[in-house]
Amino acid sequence: MSNTFGRLFRITTWGESHGHSIGVVVDGCPPRLPIDIEAIQRELDRRRPGQSRITTQRREADRVKILSGVYHGRTLGTSIALMVENADARGKDYSEMRDKYRPSHADYTYQAKYGIRAVEGGGRASARETVGRVAGGAVARLVLDQAGIEVVAWVDQVSDICARVDSSAVSLAAVEANIARCPDPPAAEKMIERIDAARKDGDSLGGVVRAVARNVPAGLGAPVFGKLDADLAGAMLGLPAAKGFEVGSGFAGVTMTGSEHNDPFYIDRAGNTPTVRTRTNHSGGIQGGISNGESIEIAVAFKPTATILRPQQTVDTQGREVTLKPRGRHDPCVLPRAVPIVEAMMALVLADHLLYHRAQCGGEPVRGEPEQ
Amino acid sequence: MSNTFGRLFRITTWGESHGHSIGVVVDGCPPRLPIDIEAIQRELDRRRPGQSRITTQRREADRVKILSGVYHGRTLGTSIALMVENADARGKDYSEMRDKYRPSHADYTYQAKYGIRAVEGGGRASARETVGRVAGGAVARLVLDQAGIEVVAWVDQVSDICARVDSSAVSLAAVEANIARCPDPPAAEKMIERIDAARKDGDSLGGVVRAVARNVPAGLGAPVFGKLDADLAGAMLGLPAAKGFEVGSGFAGVTMTGSEHNDPFYIDRAGNTPTVRTRTNHSGGIQGGISNGESIEIAVAFKPTATILRPQQTVDTQGREVTLKPRGRHDPCVLPRAVPIVEAMMALVLADHLLYHRAQCGGEPVRGEPEQ
Amino acid sequence: MSNTFGRLFRITTWGESHGHSIGVVVDGCPPRLPIDIEAIQRELDRRRPGQSRITTQRREADRVKILSGVYHGRTLGTSIALMVENADARGKDYSEMRDKYRPSHADYTYQAKYGIRAVEGGGRASARETVGRVAGGAVARLVLDQAGIEVVAWVDQVSDICARVDSSAVSLAAVEANIARCPDPPAAEKMIERIDAARKDGDSLGGVVRAVARNVPAGLGAPVFGKLDADLAGAMLGLPAAKGFEVGSGFAGVTMTGSEHNDPFYIDRAGNTPTVRTRTNHSGGIQGGISNGESIEIAVAFKPTATILRPQQTVDTQGREVTLKPRGRHDPCVLPRAVPIVEAMMALVLADHLLYHRAQCGGEPVRGEPEQ
Amino acid sequence: MSNTFGRLFRITTWGESHGHSIGVVVDGCPPRLPIDIEAIQRELDRRRPGQSRITTQRREADRVKILSGVYHGRTLGTSIALMVENADARGKDYSEMRDKYRPSHADYTYQAKYGIRAVEGGGRASARETVGRVAGGAVARLVLDQAGIEVVAWVDQVSDICARVDSSAVSLAAVEANIARCPDPPAAEKMIERIDAARKDGDSLGGVVRAVARNVPAGLGAPVFGKLDADLAGAMLGLPAAKGFEVGSGFAGVTMTGSEHNDPFYIDRAGNTPTVRTRTNHSGGIQGGISNGESIEIAVAFKPTATILRPQQTVDTQGREVTLKPRGRHDPCVLPRAVPIVEAMMALVLADHLLYHRAQCGGEPVRGEPEQ
Repeated sequence: MSNTFGRLFRITTWGESHGHSIGVVVDGCPPRLPIDIEAIQRELDRRRPGQSRITTQRREADRVKILSGVYHGRTLGTSIALMVENADARGKDYSEMRDKYRPSHADYTYQAKYGIRAVEGGGRASARETVGRVAGGAVARLVLDQAGIEVVAWVDQVSDICARVDSSAVSLAAVEANIARCPDPPAAEKMIERIDAARKDGDSLGGVVRAVARNVPAGLGAPVFGKLDADLAGAMLGLPAAKGFEVGSGFAGVTMTGSEHNDPFYIDRAGNTPTVRTRTNHSGGIQGGISNGESIEIAVAFKPTATILRPQQTVDTQGREVTLKPRGRHDPCVLPRAVPIVEAMMALVLADHLLYHRAQCGGEPVRGEPEQ
Repeated sequence: MSNTFGRLFRITTWGESHGHSIGVVVDGCPPRLPIDIEAIQRELDRRRPGQSRITTQRREADRVKILSGVYHGRTLGTSIALMVENADARGKDYSEMRDKYRPSHADYTYQAKYGIRAVEGGGRASARETVGRVAGGAVARLVLDQAGIEVVAWVDQVSDICARVDSSAVSLAAVEANIARCPDPPAAEKMIERIDAARKDGDSLGGVVRAVARNVPAGLGAPVFGKLDADLAGAMLGLPAAKGFEVGSGFAGVTMTGSEHNDPFYIDRAGNTPTVRTRTNHSGGIQGGISNGESIEIAVAFKPTATILRPQQTVDTQGREVTLKPRGRHDPCVLPRAVPIVEAMMALVLADHLLYHRAQCGGEPVRGEPEQ
Repeated sequence: MSNTFGRLFRITTWGESHGHSIGVVVDGCPPRLPIDIEAIQRELDRRRPGQSRITTQRREADRVKILSGVYHGRTLGTSIALMVENADARGKDYSEMRDKYRPSHADYTYQAKYGIRAVEGGGRASARETVGRVAGGAVARLVLDQAGIEVVAWVDQVSDICARVDSSAVSLAAVEANIARCPDPPAAEKMIERIDAARKDGDSLGGVVRAVARNVPAGLGAPVFGKLDADLAGAMLGLPAAKGFEVGSGFAGVTMTGSEHNDPFYIDRAGNTPTVRTRTNHSGGIQGGISNGESIEIAVAFKPTATILRPQQTVDTQGREVTLKPRGRHDPCVLPRAVPIVEAMMALVLADHLLYHRAQCGGEPVRGEPEQ
Repeated sequence: MSNTFGRLFRITTWGESHGHSIGVVVDGCPPRLPIDIEAIQRELDRRRPGQSRITTQRREADRVKILSGVYHGRTLGTSIALMVENADARGKDYSEMRDKYRPSHADYTYQAKYGIRAVEGGGRASARETVGRVAGGAVARLVLDQAGIEVVAWVDQVSDICARVDSSAVSLAAVEANIARCPDPPAAEKMIERIDAARKDGDSLGGVVRAVARNVPAGLGAPVFGKLDADLAGAMLGLPAAKGFEVGSGFAGVTMTGSEHNDPFYIDRAGNTPTVRTRTNHSGGIQGGISNGESIEIAVAFKPTATILRPQQTVDTQGREVTLKPRGRHDPCVLPRAVPIVEAMMALVLADHLLYHRAQCGGEPVRGEPEQ
């Protein structure tokens, strides 16, 4: 249960940080979609550590292998299994991790729940687990591509450095233009400096990723418990280190009045069909749990990484208060690498809802005027 | 699918604002729990409109009826159905709502999705839908009571008026002591004034509800996709008007460094058994998706209510740009009434995870030291 | 979990035999379907006891009420709740049922599982529970009607009296033409005599219901775990008193050789499009878990009813061996009343798979030649 | 959806006959179970083709690899992935299978559903898919072992040759004592002869597998839709070539009267605690969908294998009527190899219900007297 995500377009993942492999089974994917292993690999490369000096230096090749579900370059409609083998990680000394619970990691809670945990690299609680999500999300993007839906995310804040960007204009190219994955170059530069400084300090930084889904038709989602924003929130808070979620105006919206916050409707006559649009988008593209045809806009808060290279007070597995003195490398800021992961989760939620809409309403959601 | 919530402790709800009734079927409830219809009614009364001058004046008796699943005051283990009949609402004129899409309501998106909608009172999109959640949550509380878990929520912010409260000390009595449901009396007074002013203006206000679950054992939740915080986020963003969610440090945590944010472990020797505790609780009681024995702390942002008594630009069902001129009563601020609803959703998530933990791990989660 | 059936077209039921009501929430129903309360009532009337002298004499009006999900005669796409109130059943003496476990009923197993049970009338284990299934199935039929799919069931065997019918020719009218619901009139006559005799003996009889779904397009179902026949089997064995299930050749097929059993394909050129058909239908319309365009043919074995009016050896709740001496009325043969229930479950499974097919494959299944 | 089985103890499988591998992800397995790869391998070896002269001669090593979820020989509580790589199958000529639909295979229905299919070896529709089930079932057996539950299946009938066995006495050793997996040696001998003859004829035979689960506590299962027998039926009809299912008296029970069929209760005072037992077991260990403490007894009918070495009438993908002339090897009777697969599915269903029972009822089901 806890390793499966989605209702109709579903992924089930496996793998620990230092086990044989990380993998994902994608179930429910439509048949006959052209599937390009290089497109999947590209997303995994964006997630991979060691891409730049500001992320962790662990080097992993992370080559994806298709185990099933693809035939002559097209999806079969049956389960697609994708696997990334873990590089050999022997030799490192994990004795301190074995005995001492790292603060704000999952060491203690896994032990409390299961009475056992894979010590090396954090096991299943490692951020390496997100390999499966990104691979699955890359398949979900194939479904979105067919529907013309685009998903793009970027680093909007690192510590107190905020980007200034027009979310409607952010492109993948602008995001990938710098190693901070922040489409505001001056802010990106400051973020990189700050991350470099944190690395030298042996400390870590948090931040905010924003994401937008464009060209989402009106009608995706559902009332009450299948709300599109509820599913996005659940998807994002399931990411390692995520502590907050916003859709549209988010927490800032609470100080507005209703007359300021309500999004006035108008008729857009620019295209072939007159379309119902809103002049503002405080709703973030979702009203009553259902997309309204505007861009879906969300933000995810990530806490500073728990792994730091400074001595910390903790307890050991014998119940003694001890000092943890971490060694080696660390990732001072996960934000740049979180970008493709946020995109993957957003793609998974949208693909699931596209299929769900078809199931109940018997066709693609309407663009333009809804049926009277 | 979209009308069911939960995995093992599940609720399925029905009902439109102006239909026959609102109801809920609770599935998976443990057998032989003493169930008190008055306890359920009490929660519904807290949710009911017309409780005070600062919430909507619509008066509903909202008497709950048990249709099944209870036998001589105890749960049977089979499905529990609870129903609240809707008062007769005929006579009101809904012609404007029929023709014009209310901005930032679900009128347009329901129409876009389904090609049909129940016009009167917003149908299924009405906040009246939360009756089923609150009734189901009241049953979930019976499960939590047995485990000694307490859930309490309060209004922490209305517009820009913020309460100052020690979340560890907030009691139900303090919350219920004023009509703002804010346990900081001076802030509560200002909130009430501000809400009164908004009512006179025909405008509305947003705010933040905070909630805490106390005495949650370490070990609830699951890695990867069944994370406790992910499920709470999904539950809360499914509430009408919710736009944001935080656990622990939330968005504020992003400007901290890892060395500030990490929660140091220590051994608490105050009780009978030495217990692993953390000195701070930036994690909000959840690490790696699993509870760590500290209080679970969350916040939910609610936008200002969409219904206001001011003219607004919108479009009608014929695709014409028109002005909507609402009449009658409105609820200038849902925050006080959101408190029992947030508690209900939190109780549902926790009860579900309690059952899920038992299923996999074969007993109640450990309090105190985890098994070595 | 245990009170919900289906994946996308789902029903959740509630109610005990002697509680307030029996009801069903239908989730996932397509919007804008014309829904006729009389059509639902008609199915419930077929299920109702006291229709004829050969079924139980308990008289229940069983008037269905729509609680939600329908608006001006059309489905809203949101949850549809249907309820049948139980007639007042006070006065009867249930003391013997309270103390003594009735053999081959669920009295003992409910007690073993839950440590509590609703004694009167068997509570949730009563066949009265099927009211919710039949009401939900009547809604599922609306979905099938749109797709042109017809479901018809009949009594094919009572005790050792077997009907001889051409399953391709059985019509609802022929089934309803006699109180045995057996479309072979001479066999029906013998069945009625035998049931009458069993009643006089205070004994009961079992039998077989056969059902056929016609005009099912090729392509419904799924490989591996969502097989159409697996879902039908699960649906049917969930019926009270069901002990066996067959699809196509069933148990008789095991004595055939492959060369006899394989269904040769041919091209049917009778209609507008040449269609792939099979000359025989030992497969029962399903191959590899997916419909092949032929009629789906199943059979369900029902044991003789457990309630008989003869003394039986049993134990009581105090662990003593005792004799149970039942009094009153009994239903000597449930077969005639099982017919609409089997149809309802078959309709639910097919509607679910229709929606599921749309979700993944993006349209209705192909009739005639599959895409190359 | 269609590649996942189970609610709490769940398996998700992948793999086509001639793809990279067949695999399974087991989710929800309790933590800290000792897991022995050789025990898993042993079950796979029983399923493997080429074990004896009466099953298919295809030789596959089928070595299982653990990809995740196991740590120093114990389960972690997180997802367990198991994989069997497919041997290189290149070189064989599949051109006839590509063009002509094999009668009573899934070639046509896959094509009708998905518009694409993996031709070689039948792809996902190959019986090779059951590797994932057997591997997952071997993990489920670890859960059952802890609870003291034993599952054993055997070949009870091949064509019209029926075994005579006392189901309460059948042991794994007796089943494995001959290549027919029939614990009645004279019948086994006849079965082997008949299968040999069918092979020489290029034809195939069907049969019946019976299975029993012993020492199942009373209380597993659920009323209405989570019935234990319904889940077993769904599990078994999901097996390739399965056409029928029975629990307890099955189809034979329909000719009995209630007074013959009802299982009288008595108190068994042989053990430490007096236990409620039944004198007969027509119920097959399940009453009202819940286990009653007697052995659970089921039967599964398998049709004769579709692959035969005789010319057959069929159609090709161009819509022409053609003759299929199969070559090479075939498996004249799947029954012996179906035995471990039936056991695996039964184990999966029981493990799932054990966990589900713990979740709702908070402990292991009661043996002996239920709570009053």
